[in-house]
Amino acid sequence: MTYCAAMMMDKGLVFGSDSRTNAGVDNISIYSKMKVYERPGDRVIVILTSGNLSITQATLSNLDRRAHSGDGRETLWSAPSMFDVASVVGEVLREVQAKDGPHLIKNYIDSNASFLVGGQILGEEPRLFHVYAQGNFVEATQETPYFQIGEAKYGKPIIDRLIRADTDLTDAAKCLLVSFDSTMRSNISVGLPIDLVCYRKDSLKVDMRWHILESDPYFNELRRQWSDGIRDAFSKLSNLEEKPS
Amino acid sequence: MTYCAAMMMDKGLVFGSDSRTNAGVDNISIYSKMKVYERPGDRVIVILTSGNLSITQATLSNLDRRAHSGDGRETLWSAPSMFDVASVVGEVLREVQAKDGPHLIKNYIDSNASFLVGGQILGEEPRLFHVYAQGNFVEATQETPYFQIGEAKYGKPIIDRLIRADTDLTDAAKCLLVSFDSTMRSNISVGLPIDLVCYRKDSLKVDMRWHILESDPYFNELRRQWSDGIRDAFSKLSNLEEKPS
Repeated sequence: MTYCAAMMMDKGLVFGSDSRTNAGVDNISIYSKMKVYERPGDRVIVILTSGNLSITQATLSNLDRRAHSGDGRETLWSAPSMFDVASVVGEVLREVQAKDGPHLIKNYIDSNASFLVGGQILGEEPRLFHVYAQGNFVEATQETPYFQIGEAKYGKPIIDRLIRADTDLTDAAKCLLVSFDSTMRSNISVGLPIDLVCYRKDSLKVDMRWHILESDPYFNELRRQWSDGIRDAFSKLSNLEEKPS
Repeated sequence: MTYCAAMMMDKGLVFGSDSRTNAGVDNISIYSKMKVYERPGDRVIVILTSGNLSITQATLSNLDRRAHSGDGRETLWSAPSMFDVASVVGEVLREVQAKDGPHLIKNYIDSNASFLVGGQILGEEPRLFHVYAQGNFVEATQETPYFQIGEAKYGKPIIDRLIRADTDLTDAAKCLLVSFDSTMRSNISVGLPIDLVCYRKDSLKVDMRWHILESDPYFNELRRQWSDGIRDAFSKLSNLEEKPS
């Protein structure tokens, strides 16, 4: 399984992904699900991946091959807007699905894969897209400023409560980590390390990148503080009145 | 959709269910998903239902018909243990599936239905079962003291954090309401009224039964307090150290 989330606030973007993949519960591996493309002063693009690992890896590899082929097709480095970047990702995903999908489907293997694609290119605002398994995509807005892929439900309530377009980047990053904590507690197929990236609007470089391991003292302290805070909030709730049955 | 949860603590049982059903988003109705069978001094049985409404309703109706048929088969009122009660529910569910299931499947309609069945019968301890769509079932234990059916994931993290076998009944009921709050915020197909029942061990009667409507002042206050408490807990988390990228 996988958990990835990305948020778009007025002040910039925050991205997070876990690193656990599994083919059955008896075959668990560590793969980063985040790839960062950075050309300082020109563009920062972050891609988060979920779904069949061979499909997501092939898509990322083919994005790189295309960038180096020099055949004149649009690439992540030549695309003039984030919309074009999302289009390129969707297009390459479709090529991979066309090649590999039928072989997987024939053997009842799920070939679904989806992507969160966000960043900023010089000349436009930061933007965030969710590219679906079919290669089409939607864009985040002020009203719906975040996307999740993979095991989304456990970590959704805290994001729904806290994230708005005017949320501060540091708070958004903390909220994302709390959301990972909730998800990892309920689903062991989502696991550390967590990759976390903060992108500050108009900086056109990665502002913070963090690879959070089991031993990370900040994340462990955050988890403990959050657990205590939840218990404290719970202990302060008014008692149920006794109702007659 | 549906959200039901039931918890078994040392001091008794707590049950909760929402009341929203939908056949598509354009066809929403209110049906209680809780049925209580009480013979004070002898037994209290609570059944929560999830899944295809025609299947769950037919199962409950056939449980009643069987109880009145006098044909010598085990019923909810004659079963000597909660294990036998769960068996009867599973058996009646299988009869309904055998009769209606093939007609639904032929038209690609999901006929799945599952049940939480808990309570106490004089002479044994309180017990709680999860009866699956196939009529088989599992029982709650000290280590896994609760079950959820329907839209379970949004409301699971808070239960995982707070509920243990030694949790107080009042706290368990509050936790269940918080779990409903998280679920209803994230999935509009789960909705009020909420039915809530508390059963105190060895009382052999329903101790508290509560039908929570939109206008319920306690529940609305609880939601507000919880929302404030979460924000407060979040505001107290240590700040992320600035990490170099």
